[in-house]
Amino acid sequence: MFFLCVNLPFLVFQEMLKDVVRTKTYQNVIYRNKFLFQNKVVLDVGAGTGILSLFCAKAGAAHVYAVECSHMADMAKQIVETNGLPDVVTVLKGKIEEIELPVAKVDIIISEWMGYFLLFENMLNTVLYARDKWLVDDGVVLPDEASLYLTAIEDAEYKDDKIEFWNNVYGFDMSCIKKQAMMEHFVDTVDQKQIVTNCHLLKTMDISKMVPGDASFTASFKLIAERDDYIHAFVAHFDVSFTKCHKLMGFSTGPRSRATHWKQTVLYLEDVLTICEGETIIGSMTVAPNKKNPRDVDIMVKYSLSGRRCVVSRVQFYKMR
Amino acid sequence: MFFLCVNLPFLVFQEMLKDVVRTKTYQNVIYRNKFLFQNKVVLDVGAGTGILSLFCAKAGAAHVYAVECSHMADMAKQIVETNGLPDVVTVLKGKIEEIELPVAKVDIIISEWMGYFLLFENMLNTVLYARDKWLVDDGVVLPDEASLYLTAIEDAEYKDDKIEFWNNVYGFDMSCIKKQAMMEHFVDTVDQKQIVTNCHLLKTMDISKMVPGDASFTASFKLIAERDDYIHAFVAHFDVSFTKCHKLMGFSTGPRSRATHWKQTVLYLEDVLTICEGETIIGSMTVAPNKKNPRDVDIMVKYSLSGRRCVVSRVQFYKMR
Repeated sequence: MFFLCVNLPFLVFQEMLKDVVRTKTYQNVIYRNKFLFQNKVVLDVGAGTGILSLFCAKAGAAHVYAVECSHMADMAKQIVETNGLPDVVTVLKGKIEEIELPVAKVDIIISEWMGYFLLFENMLNTVLYARDKWLVDDGVVLPDEASLYLTAIEDAEYKDDKIEFWNNVYGFDMSCIKKQAMMEHFVDTVDQKQIVTNCHLLKTMDISKMVPGDASFTASFKLIAERDDYIHAFVAHFDVSFTKCHKLMGFSTGPRSRATHWKQTVLYLEDVLTICEGETIIGSMTVAPNKKNPRDVDIMVKYSLSGRRCVVSRVQFYKMR
Repeated sequence: MFFLCVNLPFLVFQEMLKDVVRTKTYQNVIYRNKFLFQNKVVLDVGAGTGILSLFCAKAGAAHVYAVECSHMADMAKQIVETNGLPDVVTVLKGKIEEIELPVAKVDIIISEWMGYFLLFENMLNTVLYARDKWLVDDGVVLPDEASLYLTAIEDAEYKDDKIEFWNNVYGFDMSCIKKQAMMEHFVDTVDQKQIVTNCHLLKTMDISKMVPGDASFTASFKLIAERDDYIHAFVAHFDVSFTKCHKLMGFSTGPRSRATHWKQTVLYLEDVLTICEGETIIGSMTVAPNKKNPRDVDIMVKYSLSGRRCVVSRVQFYKMR
């Protein structure tokens, strides 16, 4: 098992809180579904400033345990005091696998564990560990569904800027870096006008049932061009859902939705694909934690296109680290 | 002694290379002062992609040793090959204190070692170590002068955004974080219109002579208001100079100069100072590496203003980590 604890700058917490799509969705989920929380015991995994715990307390939870391993736990304790909720919210400073809860079981686990590309540097395993150890049998995990999607984009301008740049650097040929740079993922905001194909659902994870191994998977995809264009990159994004709400709630980090701090994950292709409307890129994506460093993610994409103007079949690797 | 080796994403190297103020200045220093390099042996400390070594080779250096500890060293080797310079440039992968040079002494040490606030996460000690071990007595260090400056700015908008934000976070009082957040430094671009006072030279370091301990210092300052305004923050920036050039060359990272990737360092004040034209803030800044983690920097600022509208005397601490 692999747990890390990082003391992030306050500015990072602020950026996450200011991500209105993220924080407001959690707030709405909690405030509009008080029936879920009333008289329930809640565990907040990776509580940070304690904001989700405070929401739960206001929504009528019997008690909330806010677990946070970084120095932010000390701040969270003060915040709970300042806001007059020390009888309802208990902040526990420590790692999930090391702390002891004063109760045997909890009714609800809430967490904002998602990283870039859903799985990068994320706390999913920590949430699953907490679920198996403390959640009652019919307990609720919030969010309980996360889905990863793939689409393909035209991105000549930025591919030139990020990759072709290395061809001539102040008069020197550094093109050997291109191949390496192409294995990097780029966290960037994609304009929806760049999207050339449909968006394919790669994988849905049921956080209430899945096991850690389910975060390693191979998923096939089929992307159909919606116009004549070029393809420079695959783009991944994720959605999360809270299916236990009165009506389905959640948010998307996709390029057609309001921007979040997660942006999208851009994976550049070695080739430029010249694709015609209706032509199809078929392939598969394999995602797995890096064996040496399980917080890193290895991605392999196999893809092929047999089009009028371009025939290509290739395997490409990406390292998220 | 404390040396760290970090495998940075290629994107970070790209951003540094694309910083034209930085890279073009080095290029101009080298190409316009070939007399410094002809038939000389050069050591490039923290060579990265090897760009400075390539410049030196083109300028006529007899040999260049490019030392780089990260995985970038492998790329630098390939780049040297690709550009037909393997007879002139030798890339050595390793830490400065662990590698062996095939020569006893070098004539020139070149390095781009500067971090945010000049000293944050920087390689200055590595450069000084290399200088003491390998540089000939009358050798040249490039750059050989670095100066740190302080000014004061009006910044109501961003102070509200970054600091006062914590007063009300989705209805909760998180103001206890304000005091902590105020100890963070903010790397940000300051508009020159925000500058309220003169710019005071805090410290000049002679890289060819200084000892590591010189990077810990206390410097007094005197900032005189150039208009009636409010002061929300001190702003630090640095300049570097290459005094051994035919004519003085260098660059500034100050708010009145063209932007660089270093931006400026903004240190917010707990109070807002209401200052009148001609009034003076006097004080001192103490800078020292953190005792536990020497790559972190501790800053203490003492300042006082006896103005018509505001009398204040205060000590403020900042942790750069």
